[in-house]
Amino acid sequence: MKKLLYPVLAAALFIIFSCSNKENRTQYGLVIHGGSGNIYKGKYTSEEENAYKVKLMEALTLGDSILNSGGSSLECVEKVINLLEDSPLFNAGKGAVLTNVGTCELDASIMDGRTLNAGAVAGVQRIKNPISLAKTVMTNSRHLLLTGDGAEKFALENEFNLIDNEYFRTKKRYDQWQNSIEKKLKQKEHRTEKDEKLGTVGCAALDLNGNLAAGTSTGGISSKRFGRVGDSPIIGAGTYANNKTCAVSATGTGEYFIRNVAAYDISAKMEYQGKSLNEAAEEVIISKLTELGGSGGIIAIDNKANIVTKFNTKGMFRGSVKNGEMPIVKLYIDE
Amino acid sequence: MKKLLYPVLAAALFIIFSCSNKENRTQYGLVIHGGSGNIYKGKYTSEEENAYKVKLMEALTLGDSILNSGGSSLECVEKVINLLEDSPLFNAGKGAVLTNVGTCELDASIMDGRTLNAGAVAGVQRIKNPISLAKTVMTNSRHLLLTGDGAEKFALENEFNLIDNEYFRTKKRYDQWQNSIEKKLKQKEHRTEKDEKLGTVGCAALDLNGNLAAGTSTGGISSKRFGRVGDSPIIGAGTYANNKTCAVSATGTGEYFIRNVAAYDISAKMEYQGKSLNEAAEEVIISKLTELGGSGGIIAIDNKANIVTKFNTKGMFRGSVKNGEMPIVKLYIDE
Repeated sequence: MKKLLYPVLAAALFIIFSCSNKENRTQYGLVIHGGSGNIYKGKYTSEEENAYKVKLMEALTLGDSILNSGGSSLECVEKVINLLEDSPLFNAGKGAVLTNVGTCELDASIMDGRTLNAGAVAGVQRIKNPISLAKTVMTNSRHLLLTGDGAEKFALENEFNLIDNEYFRTKKRYDQWQNSIEKKLKQKEHRTEKDEKLGTVGCAALDLNGNLAAGTSTGGISSKRFGRVGDSPIIGAGTYANNKTCAVSATGTGEYFIRNVAAYDISAKMEYQGKSLNEAAEEVIISKLTELGGSGGIIAIDNKANIVTKFNTKGMFRGSVKNGEMPIVKLYIDE
Repeated sequence: MKKLLYPVLAAALFIIFSCSNKENRTQYGLVIHGGSGNIYKGKYTSEEENAYKVKLMEALTLGDSILNSGGSSLECVEKVINLLEDSPLFNAGKGAVLTNVGTCELDASIMDGRTLNAGAVAGVQRIKNPISLAKTVMTNSRHLLLTGDGAEKFALENEFNLIDNEYFRTKKRYDQWQNSIEKKLKQKEHRTEKDEKLGTVGCAALDLNGNLAAGTSTGGISSKRFGRVGDSPIIGAGTYANNKTCAVSATGTGEYFIRNVAAYDISAKMEYQGKSLNEAAEEVIISKLTELGGSGGIIAIDNKANIVTKFNTKGMFRGSVKNGEMPIVKLYIDE
């Protein structure tokens, strides 16, 4: 009997190991957003809908190919966000909204769930891809958050090209800005139009090594007061990743996400209360954020590749893909 | 029997109500810090020790008088920090450390535990009391965090005077800066001296109405890269207050407090795990912060007026007072 026991045990262990190993090594996924807000059926022409869907699908395809070939979640997050930053469809990089003085000021942050290391930039005006600068702050400096001219000086020292602020400005955003100035003159008191908040981009990913990462990039809110910083470059508010729990990127009225420490709160509820990612996101976005008066949403993935998108607005540009599954892209709430 | 029951019940309820009411209405307290770090016995002359103690005691006396006369915790936090900002002893307001280009750049944040409202400024150079500007951002704007020139423009519109950056610079800080430049030239690679991080100030308070508030103000780390922002203006990292749990102000290597979302994490552990303030602070500062490689500490008060100071450095300038108790001021770990 004893002679038999060892081979049987060894075989059993091999099977267990193979299964757990297989689970660890074949689960990857990513989820992206291009902003939440006043996005409802009938608002966009089918051409416009299509343009958003095609760009989101392109981003998912890129991310999927990075993760599938063994690339890291950090690389995936950076490259996917680069693609969205370069598209004028979203309020990040090219196509960013204009501040009240007519410039584009960009914010971004990225976090590595394996090390809890993070990098962020705020108020940069001449960096084509702010998420890449945020990543370089994380890897090449002893600081975490650099702002304005200082961040650009750091960029120059790290072989980034400084580009003209004009690059970011599209006709659509310029018209929006002109419009808001005219309204401001008429109304005296200035309020942000719902549409003007749209379009922050973000990505959260789990790679084949079980590492999570998240990143967010934005042009902020239109006609924002010069120097205003929202939640996108704030670790814990707009971006958070921790291999123990999940990776999260947020979009919406940033001030409320900061006050709620929303991205980290989802992780804390998972770690401290044993909630699932879906339960935690539901409580943070649908209950707490809504009660405080904030609007917006999050995308998130946990360390088992469960994916959640959650928002309290009419819609959110979003998409996700897991290995071996078809990518999904959605715009409205009832999809 | 029945006839007796009601008066007895009423009397019992009255006693319970009086006690709980008494507890609610007579419990107030505040706790302050003037930075943590390489603070050890023998480092300071008795005159220097005395100067720190006298200033901390002065701050406690001011805070105590505000809370005792029914003032709000928010007012207490602002005024106490104003006093510490105005003292050249601390690295906040007058006496702030110099950036690598020789200027002073100040950060501050404040949070109201009753409403979860908050305000913050980062990288301001001409505001005498950054904590008061942070409070005005909270009360008079739709934004939460304003930076640099934009924050100063907002200040002007809100009747703040802009002062010359020279005001903040003391001989001690200038010499420190010169020293670090010389070292930098010698060493090529620049590292921050332990002493240069000292002196962020903060206050957390509970008022007679049961409202908590916290605030933090700093000049950052000496010779910091132009535009670097640490944890002090980041809600959730350097400052957090929530009537449900506690009010917290942090000081130390800010990047690690941001990565750990340290101030909010203490609150989350209390709310989600039922930990006491002391247990939560111990886990966040002594375990998590230390494991990540960060150094520093926090001061905190909970909604029952329990006060905690916790740090993983040799010392922290700190003090606290509760109603009906003598104020306490300490500098070193073994006090």
